[in-house]
Amino acid sequence: MTETSLAYDSVIVRFGSEIGVKSRPVRLRYEKLVAKHVRKALRVHGIPFDRLEHSFGRLYVRTSEAEEASKAISCVFGVSSTSPALSTSSSLEDIMDRGLEVARSVLKPGSTFAVRCRRVGQHPYTSLDVCRLLGERILAELGHMGLKVNLEAPDRTVYVEIRDDEAYIYTAIREGVGGYPLGVQGKVIGLLSGGIDSPVACWLAMRRGCLVVPVHFDIKPFTDDRLIEKALELARVLAGWSLGAVRHVYVVPFGRVLEQVRSSCPERLTCVLCKRFMYRIAEQLASREKADGLVTGDAIGEQASQTLKNMKVIDAALASLPVHRPLLCFDKADTVRLARRIGTYDISSLPDAGCSAVPKKPTTAARLEDVLKAEEALDVEGLVHDAVSRAEKRKIEGPLPLPKEY
Amino acid sequence: MTETSLAYDSVIVRFGSEIGVKSRPVRLRYEKLVAKHVRKALRVHGIPFDRLEHSFGRLYVRTSEAEEASKAISCVFGVSSTSPALSTSSSLEDIMDRGLEVARSVLKPGSTFAVRCRRVGQHPYTSLDVCRLLGERILAELGHMGLKVNLEAPDRTVYVEIRDDEAYIYTAIREGVGGYPLGVQGKVIGLLSGGIDSPVACWLAMRRGCLVVPVHFDIKPFTDDRLIEKALELARVLAGWSLGAVRHVYVVPFGRVLEQVRSSCPERLTCVLCKRFMYRIAEQLASREKADGLVTGDAIGEQASQTLKNMKVIDAALASLPVHRPLLCFDKADTVRLARRIGTYDISSLPDAGCSAVPKKPTTAARLEDVLKAEEALDVEGLVHDAVSRAEKRKIEGPLPLPKEY
Repeated sequence: MTETSLAYDSVIVRFGSEIGVKSRPVRLRYEKLVAKHVRKALRVHGIPFDRLEHSFGRLYVRTSEAEEASKAISCVFGVSSTSPALSTSSSLEDIMDRGLEVARSVLKPGSTFAVRCRRVGQHPYTSLDVCRLLGERILAELGHMGLKVNLEAPDRTVYVEIRDDEAYIYTAIREGVGGYPLGVQGKVIGLLSGGIDSPVACWLAMRRGCLVVPVHFDIKPFTDDRLIEKALELARVLAGWSLGAVRHVYVVPFGRVLEQVRSSCPERLTCVLCKRFMYRIAEQLASREKADGLVTGDAIGEQASQTLKNMKVIDAALASLPVHRPLLCFDKADTVRLARRIGTYDISSLPDAGCSAVPKKPTTAARLEDVLKAEEALDVEGLVHDAVSRAEKRKIEGPLPLPKEY
Repeated sequence: MTETSLAYDSVIVRFGSEIGVKSRPVRLRYEKLVAKHVRKALRVHGIPFDRLEHSFGRLYVRTSEAEEASKAISCVFGVSSTSPALSTSSSLEDIMDRGLEVARSVLKPGSTFAVRCRRVGQHPYTSLDVCRLLGERILAELGHMGLKVNLEAPDRTVYVEIRDDEAYIYTAIREGVGGYPLGVQGKVIGLLSGGIDSPVACWLAMRRGCLVVPVHFDIKPFTDDRLIEKALELARVLAGWSLGAVRHVYVVPFGRVLEQVRSSCPERLTCVLCKRFMYRIAEQLASREKADGLVTGDAIGEQASQTLKNMKVIDAALASLPVHRPLLCFDKADTVRLARRIGTYDISSLPDAGCSAVPKKPTTAARLEDVLKAEEALDVEGLVHDAVSRAEKRKIEGPLPLPKEY
């Protein structure tokens, strides 16, 4: 993305536009939290840094590994973009010299360029002066390269950002994940199946500030060990994105429930009944964890259990916990694209035995009265209580797989 | 996108990848429905067409206005992409002649190209033969242009699609909206405020196959006439996307409810109480319309009423209707991008008086017991019944604003 010939010494960090629209106190609180997480990200990535200056709307990081730092920081929730930059004083001479240096390292012969400047503070020059003068200087010194100024659609742009006594020069803007700082929205329980959708749904909730507590339902003997292994590995990836804030994953033994459903209820209702049990158990865990919602990977119509009618019947099993479905209207291709980007796709795509309890013809339009009648054959409360009491809260141990880039 | 010098006579329509993964009978049913909607789209756009051939996985449309037809069809839910094409017979001679014609019209001097072929049926040649022979023919006839073959990353690709006796040649693939054919998922009630988010949420639900019944809560005298005018215009845009399947919008007089809330309840609970009333009223309308869910434009944390804790308290007002929030984890920038794309942004951005009932410090963490206590001061059932009985189901009249392009 940026050229390696030039040793950038800083990273400019921009906060999410989501944060920018908040009231001043909320904004400040959120920005401080993002700054704290940026510091943590650099620490866990082992990237050295000297200084981290927070100025309303921006964060300036001094580091000898600007490129790596920029990548790592772009993965911090609440960061909308980052730029590796060269720092200098705000004297016009320094800006010209360093600006020329940056231009020399990125402009190719025959290319077009523009200079853009953003300035905060008192200076004996205007932003327009900087653009004009640096542009002229670049043309004068690098004239042999056949460069041209193009303000509309330049091949490259040299950006100058001046803040009081300091100036930063950069040419690349790396997209950040955006959203809110992790934790500002409280906790949710995230159902984590081992498939492609659920980790993406959990990640999206994290990006909106929710601390996710992943819960995996272990459906053995209706599958083999591979599914749970995938789910645990996915929980580790989420924990990496959280920089360790996500520390635990629940594993709920669910085979007994599924056995009962299979042996005592109409086959075509299996998936709806299964989900209703999962939700009830998740609601108990939510209350234990003081979580305010349930996050699932459901997308309307993707699977039989995800039709509007079935979702209605499934949600009805919950006493008071809302179900949040970040992927509700995603097309699968969008989910897959995001899964690849956040590093869960390869794990989710590993082979597993699937679920052998799924009937050939699951209903796509369950009726609540049929479902309630089917459940009369079961000791619903007892099964839920039993599963919750055997639920295992496992610590996510060892070094976490850290997101390298977004 | 495509060059105008060549008169394409057909459009290739590809079905959404969402549809492709369904079981054969479901897939066939969905594809037939998309075909029906494509026909309707062409009719309402006034685009003439001769023939519409459905072959498992594809739709081939014969039309003299291929470019306009391609744009219009790309806006049909369930269509993943379209290509204006030149049709010919599947004889190798015809394919070479027409392929050369297409190549001549799109290839620029000095550019690189590739030929790709997809073939269904029995032919005296292979797909690879077609690629090789047409490539050679193009190089031979257009040699003076300095063209080069590049199979990895060509500037342009000439596609040949052969199906039994017919062949189609094209060079451009226009993205379609994707999703499921409208209507396959049943009905939802869509809360339509007049702002940016709610029409996008409704549109996304439509794209997943849900027939949306828009409901606008008229909060006069806490705003002026502009808000409802915007909402009605937005309903018209949605109706346009639905090709007329969305025909009505509910307008619910809500001022009386808001007055009562303002005068009898703690100010900071206003927004939470307001939404609880809206949901209750929407649930009554859902039961009247046989709708299976409520769609809202909520995004976690965007507004005070959209925190996890407040959403939980608000959802608790519903007896059994699930709340679906397609934008739950969208950053505002993503929502705005989509709003522009679907043609709702400019309407939503028109000035309005906002809501003067919003308190200075709305709660971000309402407690259910406080809310229930506040509601004791109100005749909840009576207010809901009154609003529902005065709700007006308006027909969306006149020519609809049709989506021109996606």
